[in-house]
Parts: sequence; structure tokens; C-alpha cells
Amino acid sequence: MMARLLVLNPNTSDVMTRTIGNSAALAARAMGVECDTLCPPNGPESIESRFDEIVSAYWTLDCAMQKADEYDGMVVACFGPHPVIGGIREAISVPTLGIMEASILYALPLAARFSIVTTSPRWQPMLEEGLHLLGVADRCASVRSSGLAVLDLERLPDEIIHKRLTDEAQKAVEQDHAEVIVLGCAGMAGLQESVAAACGVPVVDPVWAGVVMVGALARAGARTSKRNLYRPVDARPAMAEPPGLARVYGRMP
Amino acid sequence: MMARLLVLNPNTSDVMTRTIGNSAALAARAMGVECDTLCPPNGPESIESRFDEIVSAYWTLDCAMQKADEYDGMVVACFGPHPVIGGIREAISVPTLGIMEASILYALPLAARFSIVTTSPRWQPMLEEGLHLLGVADRCASVRSSGLAVLDLERLPDEIIHKRLTDEAQKAVEQDHAEVIVLGCAGMAGLQESVAAACGVPVVDPVWAGVVMVGALARAGARTSKRNLYRPVDARPAMAEPPGLARVYGRMP
Amino acid sequence: MMARLLVLNPNTSDVMTRTIGNSAALAARAMGVECDTLCPPNGPESIESRFDEIVSAYWTLDCAMQKADEYDGMVVACFGPHPVIGGIREAISVPTLGIMEASILYALPLAARFSIVTTSPRWQPMLEEGLHLLGVADRCASVRSSGLAVLDLERLPDEIIHKRLTDEAQKAVEQDHAEVIVLGCAGMAGLQESVAAACGVPVVDPVWAGVVMVGALARAGARTSKRNLYRPVDARPAMAEPPGLARVYGRMP
Amino acid sequence: MMARLLVLNPNTSDVMTRTIGNSAALAARAMGVECDTLCPPNGPESIESRFDEIVSAYWTLDCAMQKADEYDGMVVACFGPHPVIGGIREAISVPTLGIMEASILYALPLAARFSIVTTSPRWQPMLEEGLHLLGVADRCASVRSSGLAVLDLERLPDEIIHKRLTDEAQKAVEQDHAEVIVLGCAGMAGLQESVAAACGVPVVDPVWAGVVMVGALARAGARTSKRNLYRPVDARPAMAEPPGLARVYGRMP
Amino acid sequence: MMARLLVLNPNTSDVMTRTIGNSAALAARAMGVECDTLCPPNGPESIESRFDEIVSAYWTLDCAMQKADEYDGMVVACFGPHPVIGGIREAISVPTLGIMEASILYALPLAARFSIVTTSPRWQPMLEEGLHLLGVADRCASVRSSGLAVLDLERLPDEIIHKRLTDEAQKAVEQDHAEVIVLGCAGMAGLQESVAAACGVPVVDPVWAGVVMVGALARAGARTSKRNLYRPVDARPAMAEPPGLARVYGRMP
Amino acid sequence: MMARLLVLNPNTSDVMTRTIGNSAALAARAMGVECDTLCPPNGPESIESRFDEIVSAYWTLDCAMQKADEYDGMVVACFGPHPVIGGIREAISVPTLGIMEASILYALPLAARFSIVTTSPRWQPMLEEGLHLLGVADRCASVRSSGLAVLDLERLPDEIIHKRLTDEAQKAVEQDHAEVIVLGCAGMAGLQESVAAACGVPVVDPVWAGVVMVGALARAGARTSKRNLYRPVDARPAMAEPPGLARVYGRMP
Repeated sequence: MMARLLVLNPNTSDVMTRTIGNSAALAARAMGVECDTLCPPNGPESIESRFDEIVSAYWTLDCAMQKADEYDGMVVACFGPHPVIGGIREAISVPTLGIMEASILYALPLAARFSIVTTSPRWQPMLEEGLHLLGVADRCASVRSSGLAVLDLERLPDEIIHKRLTDEAQKAVEQDHAEVIVLGCAGMAGLQESVAAACGVPVVDPVWAGVVMVGALARAGARTSKRNLYRPVDARPAMAEPPGLARVYGRMP
Repeated sequence: MMARLLVLNPNTSDVMTRTIGNSAALAARAMGVECDTLCPPNGPESIESRFDEIVSAYWTLDCAMQKADEYDGMVVACFGPHPVIGGIREAISVPTLGIMEASILYALPLAARFSIVTTSPRWQPMLEEGLHLLGVADRCASVRSSGLAVLDLERLPDEIIHKRLTDEAQKAVEQDHAEVIVLGCAGMAGLQESVAAACGVPVVDPVWAGVVMVGALARAGARTSKRNLYRPVDARPAMAEPPGLARVYGRMP
Repeated sequence: MMARLLVLNPNTSDVMTRTIGNSAALAARAMGVECDTLCPPNGPESIESRFDEIVSAYWTLDCAMQKADEYDGMVVACFGPHPVIGGIREAISVPTLGIMEASILYALPLAARFSIVTTSPRWQPMLEEGLHLLGVADRCASVRSSGLAVLDLERLPDEIIHKRLTDEAQKAVEQDHAEVIVLGCAGMAGLQESVAAACGVPVVDPVWAGVVMVGALARAGARTSKRNLYRPVDARPAMAEPPGLARVYGRMP
Repeated sequence: MMARLLVLNPNTSDVMTRTIGNSAALAARAMGVECDTLCPPNGPESIESRFDEIVSAYWTLDCAMQKADEYDGMVVACFGPHPVIGGIREAISVPTLGIMEASILYALPLAARFSIVTTSPRWQPMLEEGLHLLGVADRCASVRSSGLAVLDLERLPDEIIHKRLTDEAQKAVEQDHAEVIVLGCAGMAGLQESVAAACGVPVVDPVWAGVVMVGALARAGARTSKRNLYRPVDARPAMAEPPGLARVYGRMP
Repeated sequence: MMARLLVLNPNTSDVMTRTIGNSAALAARAMGVECDTLCPPNGPESIESRFDEIVSAYWTLDCAMQKADEYDGMVVACFGPHPVIGGIREAISVPTLGIMEASILYALPLAARFSIVTTSPRWQPMLEEGLHLLGVADRCASVRSSGLAVLDLERLPDEIIHKRLTDEAQKAVEQDHAEVIVLGCAGMAGLQESVAAACGVPVVDPVWAGVVMVGALARAGARTSKRNLYRPVDARPAMAEPPGLARVYGRMP
Repeated sequence: MMARLLVLNPNTSDVMTRTIGNSAALAARAMGVECDTLCPPNGPESIESRFDEIVSAYWTLDCAMQKADEYDGMVVACFGPHPVIGGIREAISVPTLGIMEASILYALPLAARFSIVTTSPRWQPMLEEGLHLLGVADRCASVRSSGLAVLDLERLPDEIIHKRLTDEAQKAVEQDHAEVIVLGCAGMAGLQESVAAACGVPVVDPVWAGVVMVGALARAGARTSKRNLYRPVDARPAMAEPPGLARVYGRMP
């Protein structure tokens, strides 16, 4: 079976969407699956806060619902416990993972403990909440902020980005006893080799991991459980929502 | 100082908004604060899923941003870890609580352990995630579903609702060793006395608790920390969002 | 309803009782409640150990029992899991909180994580035990000792006290990622503004928080659950105890 | 070296003190140590609540301080996280354990998980708090109340006591997957064999375990750490306390 | 790249090895990888205890070391925290997973919580220890024993096996709120469809999941971290061990 | 009763076995028990990895089974969650502890929190897993590696060993707030006094603690529960295993 995946970038930055698309395409080739990458037409350029998550979740959910029938699996390319993941899982049955969860599933069998190197300081508590939700906080050595904003990853010179990331990765290895580093932002896709060379442990590109894990579950024919948490969304009276959302609410149960 | 609170119902049902408003008004009187209750013009009638949370968060956040300057505290009247709470906290500084968190803060000093009696089975895992996020899961004896949908609370006869809630409340007390019951849905506001009479322990009306706790913090002049998790939202290029959201993105930092 | 609170200082130092009384009076005014502050006639001047807790619990419990009928809520002004709190809750029904629990309930909705800055090193493990008992240890970034003894707070020059507290508060913010600081001793009442100015995050005065939280629950008419943990104390044969204790043991069930 | 232990019963019931003394004497013989058992002259006949703990802690601490120089180890014969244990540990250096902690240390190497069968329902949340404080809650399958009051153990016919305890022990084994039963009250000393015969797993007499564990640590010459938590109590101005307490406060540091 | 996997059955039963081989071959086809299945020449027919784990680990480790250079990934087909997994990871770098870990990684993105249905009662505490080691215990609703011995799976009539497994799976779904069932024994490979039909939620065949997860990591080129926990085994003086073990100890570092 | 203990060293180094034997003999004298120390004829000289654990577990289990009838308790003198401990517990009923578990049981009543100072960095994650398995991780302040290999303890000059251990012990006390230090390797037996003198808190020799705890349980007549986790090993068809293992498999149930 040829599985087909959709990588959805909730950030609307074109540069970031291309970066993500490149990593996703390489991973898709390794896994023997097909893969498209896109971002919604509206919403914030980059997701830096809960506020941004809410706005991007609305538009990304609409986008996912419009494309739902065409794919065997979905990857949400925002690193964190983005609310849209749960919404998509309720509405469809094919495997759907955010890149945070996928990266952690990928890293767990490779080492005792992993650390996440992320962007701005706000992401530290946000990702720690995500680790608790996933139920894997005990395996995380640390979450470290590089101090970079998400869009800095496309604006700043490569050597500055490299230095900031490797500084934190090395501290995670030496001070926090991390044995694997997870890059904690979709915009860091493609940087895993240079960071790994500097810190001496495996480094996980989260977009790569997202396509690998969703690709595996899609090839295996896995389906989201429809019992309790992810049972289908109830049909509702018509509302003034965009077409993808309206379609789900208007669907017969 | 006379504190003024806004109770925001992310569900758009008028009946539920009135039920909430009644409980909120009583609690406001007890606390010596003023209080308005409203719901956004768009979004699902009732919140029964993550999908609904996303759509309602978008419209509720917009609504909160339009009203932000007029109030000394905000209560989000959806029982659960609703994503809009974090978004509002970033954008403003006055105390903002969801009614799940407020109910638990209210219940903790009254007993060793509390149980939550909620609506449909999907809310059980959703609320258990909320307990982990709040960091208080150890104090929760159980989360029990009554099997009622949110809108059943306004449609079914009172005696059926009463029986379903008291059945679960009694099991929570006798089998799970709960010493306080928290009603786990905004639509259950006003039912605490009849359930308490049946199960013999204090019962918390979550809307009442929301106004009490936000009222206390507002009277005390407490302010959300602006370090890390809730620092202000960054200004952004103008986007096609409704006026409340656009206003935050367009705001000078 | 005009609620009336009793703030009980288990430490018998007059200076500390006045410091506590000042903070309590300000908070009572903000909450629209009345409030008296007193300490028992016997017991250690300051509580620096478990040994002191035991002796002070005996005399504070007696004192509380003598005053039990006159108040709508009680605040125990010793920061920690002081054993007297549970004893009072069993014997009466009006809301009774220690200032540690109250401060944490106050701080939780304001930030991702709080740190406690306390007095001598012994309090670090004692407060960590308290956090586990309250079930909120996951939300605490750190407990830091200032190295000050309790009575140093009334004996040392202000600038030394200020320096010791702000040093630890700043480390908590920068190294431990605290977003709110809780002052971990009743004798630190009134110092919250100067510490907040130095460390840039909200700082909680625990006596203030105690009166705010008990004031809110008293205004709301909340009552301690009498199921299991806090059910009334059984009547007993007469014993050679002081009048407040004898009264409870002699009470008809 | 011939170690000498003091078993202190914080309950003032003579019948219970004799029951404890019998079990302690047998365990002392098995361990090759000497052992005296006594109770303080004042305080509640039985400890059924936090209120009772406070009163008994005061008189038991005084009693322990009067005897402190004569013994190589102390056993506190109240099953639970009794506050007096910490107070004694601060004031002296020889090993001091409550019978709850001793029973659990004794049971841990014998099985995957243990259950505690205790007296009245209030002890369930109290012992669960104790398990958290000891940091061993994960190894406990359940805490089950027999519904008996402490003094019922000396008043009711043996067959009723036996039935209540074995009923709960069997449920713990079959429903909760306990592999060892710990008897959760000093007054149950001596009943371990009959309960073990009925439920088919090892049963721990807590007084026996207390003497075994303190006896072992005393023979081994172990000493309480005087760093932080249990450092010595500070000398204080003279106060109106009984002689044992006054002696500690008046001691030169 | 064509990845090649080795499925190692630590149990020496030929029937079980064939059952495992069938499931592995199907999964390998779905994943587009090659796969061989074998068991060591010595060791217990089935693994029912820690004693068996030790004996089987010795022979399975030797077997794995003899084959180490020929494969791109290894699957250990014993459901549990089998000690051989860590030993293999130290000695080689290609991805190596036990089927317990693989099944859980497979199940986590599909539901809020999973339950494991295993064989004899001893496996319940053994698997609960495994869940703690993996750091995912919070996501497990329950571990349920079917009462079947491992070899019963090849000896008893199908309908009895089916009944025992579906009885426990249904209880896990209805009483424990599991949303996915994981079959907790390699000998249950191939039974997932019939159990799923009976209990209405997705069911994970652990051998299938093992090949899917190792297949994905092998295709992706993932490597075990060689920092700390899994760094290579040190060379040692020659010893009287079988050839695979001797080879590792004799290897130059 | 005169109890007789066997101390089994899974490491085959003669020097280490003598070091262990010396410490064990002193502890046996203090406890009034007899004690023999031996190591298996095969297996790695020192245990530095999971790989070594597997090989040593096989030979140590065989050795233990040959001696099983002659002793009243067994001590496994490898610091860590060595797999052989569980295997022995299944096969016999007399108390059997590893020296990690024994040291922790010994340390828990002496302080709020302990730290472990161990050998090479790999032991840090291995011992942290052991702490989770024992269910006592909350009481551990830190696990610190001295950077020494196990055999360095018999090869390097005493002053170097002393410096490495005291450096880490002092950091554990000052930075991690440890109040007791546990020496985390059997080869450190006998070093407790010099380390204690340097760091000012009690230090636990793990071999001493092993003999004290097993000695106490053996004198007390404690027996391993045979319910679930440690029920006897099933008889099996004859296999090509060494005599101790063959004897258990061939035993009638």
C-alpha cells in the first residue's frame, strides 16, 4: 500500500513551510510514503504563545477538514501540545500526530533520557505541560530555551543559530545528563546533523520524526480509537464557520 | 474598591448563559463585586469535544479582547482546561480563571479529596488531563461521567438530571472516598444544594466558585505574572481576524 | 453578611504578632471582612522545628477552641504544614487555612510555577513535605532558604533582610524559572513590595493571602466536609488538659 | 553491644500499652535487644484524629525527653505519620521510628505491593498522607478501613475483630493485588498469625516490625543525620512547659 | 534502503516462534522491510518468571551477539522489561526494542489510555514495573491477567483463549476506561482482530507493533545513543562464555 | 535462633569479594548472625553494564540455587536493581535483598533525603531506574557519578579514591541538600568513615547495610510472600543448564 501523508504547518510563514516541506520530503522518501506540506491561508506567521495557538488552531482545523478525505495520516508541524491535534483526531480516524509527540516516541527507545532545545523562554513551561499531558515527563532530562524567537530561525545568520542551539544542547548533555537531543521547533528542521556533530549524541529533527512515525502507523493501517476521548464530533445546527468546520458540524452522525 | 468581573460562557446556548448568569449574580453579591455574563456571537451551542473547544476558543478570545479594558477579572465558564484561558492570561493582567481551576482551589481546603461529576464520557479523559495540567491530580478521588450531554441539562426533566448526578455523586463518596463533590459543567450551576442533600458532603457549583475565586483575587489586586508563560503577545502584521484579535496583534508591545 | 476572621499566630513573639496583624488588617479591608489577630499565651517564641510545632500546636489548638464560636473563618499564621490546622478543621466547620496553603492557592492561577523563599535550611525539607501533602509539588519551581532564622526577621536591619530575600528570589526567577515568589514565613508579612520591585515578578505576602482566601471562603459560606478526614472529634473521659481542649473532648457528639 | 529500646505508646490506654508491651518483648527477644514499653501520664486514651495527635504529641514528647539518655533507640507505637516522631528525632540522635514507617521498611523487600488494614475510616486519608510523606505510596496497593475504632480492639469479642480484619485483608489480596498485609494499628499487635492464616500472605505486626527495625539500626550503631531536617533544637528562654520539654529548650546548644 | 530486521524470541518453544514469525512477516511486508525470526538453542520453553528471564537473557544475548552484524534492527519478542534488551543496546547501535515498549509507542497516539491483557497473575506486577521503567505508567488504564499460562496459548482450544482474553479486554474498556487494548504476550500474536471485534476498540498485536516500530526506526536510520546508559561494553579478560558473549568481551574498545 | 546469611558477590573479582567479606563480617558480628561471602566461578570480574548484569545473573543464580538450603537469608552484593535478586526471591523464601535496596531502607529513617555516590556515569541512569522500581525516588536527592570504574576501587591509590568520593559527597550535601550519603558500589565497602569525616553527614556502607537488614529480617523470621510476583518457579522439562538452575527447573511444584 502506498500511504499518503499531509504535513500541516499551523504557522503561516512561507519560508518555514518550505523548510518543513524539505525535511518532510526526505523522511517520506526514507519511509516509502508520499507527502504534501501546506499551511492555512490565515493565522499568525509564527506560533509564539497560547494566543497564537488558538488563532492558528481555528484555521488549521478548517484546513485539515477540507483535506481530510485525501490522506492516510496527518502531521501537525508545530512543536508542542497544539490544541488542533485533538480536534483533528476526533473528526477523522487516520493517524494524526504533532511533531512533539512524534519526536518523543522516536527518541524514547534510543536513550535513557532526552532533552528538548526550543526557541523563546515561554516555550519552556508550555512544553513541560506538553510532557505531562503525554505522560512521559520522567524521561525528559530538561527543556532548554535557546532564546531565539521562531522567526529568528529564518532571519538570523546560520552561525548564530548554530551557536545558540549547540550551546544549549551541550549543556543538556553535560549538566542535565541528556543522551538524545530533540530540536523543539518545526523551524529547526534540517539542523540535526550540525547540532549532533557538536554535542556528540543523536539529535532528532522533529519534522523528520513526525513523518517517520505517522508514516509507520499509516503503513501499518493503525486507526485512532473512537472510544471516549476521540469519538466523532456531534452534528450541530449550521453556524457561520469556514467550509471545513461547517462540514464537520453539518455531518450526519 | 468595587471590583467588576466578566463571566464569559464559551458555549453559545442562551439557556445555559442565563443559568450561569443567575449563579454568577448570587456569588457576586456574596463577594461584594459586580458581574456581567455573556457569550460570544459565534461558536458551538455547547462544548462537547476538543473540536468544539477550538472553535469556541477563537470566538471567545475575540470577545474577551473586545471587553478587556472594562473588567477587573474574568471567569471562563467552561469546565475544563479550555485553551482560551491561557490566551486571555497572556493578553491581559487581571486575574482570569476557568471554572474548573476555581472549583478545585475552592474545594482543596475543605477536604482530603474531591471528585468531579461531569457530563458525557469524553469529558473523563479530558478532565483528567486538566487535573494533571493543574498539578492537583493527587487530590482528586475520581472523575465520573453522568452520561448526560451538556445540552441535556437544559432539555431533560429535572428529576432525571437529579438522579443521574446524585447516583454518581453517591458512588464517588462511597466507593472512591470523595469528601467533596465538584459539579463538572457550567450548565450544572444551581444544582449544588439538591445534590448535597442527597450525598451528604459539600458540593461545589463551579460558576459560584469561579466568581468567588476571581472576585477574591480581583479585590486583593492580584495580577498575572508576566514572566515567561503569560508574557504579553507580540505585535504582528495585520491579519484577517475579527476586531478583538486584530487589536491584540496590532498593539504596540 | 459581614464575615469575621481570626488570625492565630502559633509563634508567641509579640513583635511578629503585630507584623502579622498589620498585614491581616490591610487584607481584611480589601476583602470587606473583619479580622482579629492573636497568639497563644504559652509556646515557643518562634517555630523553627518539628519540636516547636508540637509545643505550639498544643497551645494554639487550645486557644482556637476557646474562640471557636466567635468567628466565620480561621487563618493559622505559621508557614508550613503545621499540625494544628488539621486539628482545628476536625473540631469546627468554618473555613480554616494555614498561610502556606492559602499562599499557594493564591499563586497557582497567576503563573506556571512558583518558588518559596523561606528562613533557615531546616524549612526546605519541611516545606517540601508540605507541598507533597497539599498535592501541588509539581507546580513548585523551588524552595529556597535565605539562611535567616525566624526571629532574625525582627532583629536584623532591614537592608540585610531585604538583601537575603531578594538574592534568593532572583535566583528562583533566573535559575529555577519561578514566575511568582511566595514569601515563606509569617514574619515576612509586609515585605512583598520591596522584593517584587527587585525581582520583577509578583510576590505573595502569606498573611495577606491567608486573609484573602479564608475571607473569600467565609463570604461564600463554604464549610469543611465532615466526611472521613475532618469528621468531628469524639467525646472522651475528662482529662487534665487546658479549657479549650477539655471543652472539645467533653462535648457531646 | 546490648542495645536498649524504648517503646512509647502515645495512646494512654493501659490495656493497649500491655498488648504493645507483649509484642515488643517477643520481638526484642528475637533481635537480642532489651526493651521497655510505656505511655505518657496525660493525653487521650486512644488516638483517633489529628486533634488527638496534637494532644498526645505534646505529652509523648515530654515523656521521651525525660527518658532520652537511657536508650539506644525509640519506637513510637502509633501507626501513622505521628508528629512526635520528627520532634524526637531533632532532639536526640539514636534511631527513632514510628511503627508505620518500620512496618513498611519491613514489608517492602517481601513483596511487590502491600496493603494496610486500619481502624476507622478517618485513618484512610491520614495514612495515605503518611505514605506520601514517606515517599513509598507507589508500593502500596490500598489502605482499607475495618470500621473498628481503636478502643474496639480491646472491647469487642475476638471473633468480631478477627472477622473485620480478615474480610478487609482478603479483599486487599484479591481485589487490590496486595501481596503482604500490614496491620495498621498498634492495638492490633499479636493478631498477625490469625490474619495470615485466613488470607494466605505474610502479615506484619507493626509493633514487632518497629522493634525489629529500630533494634537492627541500634545494633548497627546508626545515627540520625543532624544536617537540615533533624538538626538539634535551639535553646530558648524558659517557658511554662513540663520538665522534659523545658529541658530541651533550656539546653545549651 | 532495504532494512533487515531480526525478531528474537527468548522463549524456546517452536510453536510460539512460528506464531511470532507469521505475525512478523505480515508486519514486515506492510513496512517494506525484511525480517527473520529465531529463538536461542537453550533456555526455558516459555518465560513465566524473573528466574526464566535470567536464563533466557543469557542465551538470547549470546544469540543476538552472533547475529549482530547482519541486521539493521532487532525486536525482542518477550512482552515485558526483559533484561536482554538493555544488554543488546549496549553492544550494538541499530534500533532494538522489546515488544512491550514497541506496543506502547504504537498505542500512545491512538487513545487517551491503553490497557494490557496478559497471561498469568505474576505478570501484572512485572508489567507494572515495566511501565514505570518506560516512564509511561500514567497512560496505562490497567494491567489485567487472563489467568492463562504462556504455553496455554498453544495448548488450549481457541474458543477458551478467546473467551479469557475478551473477558478481560471488555472489563478493561468498561471498568477501567481503556480506549486501546495491548495484547501482553508474544504468544498472542495474530489474535488482535478477534479481540477487537469483541471489545470495540483497536487492539495491538505486540509482535506486529515491534516490527512496525523497529522497521520505522531502521528505515529512518536511527541509532541508539552511545552516551552513558548504552555506551559500548568494555573489553575484558577471556572467560568461559558461549561464542557470542565471548566475542563482545574480547572486542577491542 | 542463630541466623546464617550468605553474601553473594555477582562480580568475580577476588579482591572485591574479600573487601565485601570484611565489611560483611563486621556487620554480622554487630547483628549477632553468622555470614559467609562468596562469588560465582564464572562471569565478569566487575559489573559495569546491563550486559554484565545478564552474564553475572546467570552464574550467580546458579550459585545461589546450589547453596539455597544452607542459609536463613541472602545478600546480593551488587549495588543496583540486579536481575538476580528477583530470580532468587522466586526460588526460595528466606529474605533476600540487594545492597541497593538494603542501603536505602537503612538510610530512609535517618534523614529527609539521601544521595548515592556511585562509580562510572552509566550507573547514574541505571540507579535512577532502580530507585523508580523500588518506589523511593522521591526521597533521593541525587545520584552522582565519581567517574571511577568499579575495578579502579581496587587499583587506584587510596587518596585518589577518597578525593573522588568526597568531592561528590560534598556536592551532594551542599548543592543537592542530601542529608545522608549512600556509597553506591559494593567495592566501596569500608570507606564510609573517611567519607563521613569529610562531608559531615552519616554515610552508609552498602555491604554493612545489606547484612544489617537481611540479618534483622532473618532473626525476625520474615518470609518472602509467595503470592503473585514471587510465587515459586514452575517445574520444566530438563535442559542443558548448570546444576543449580537445573535443580529448580526439575523440582516438583
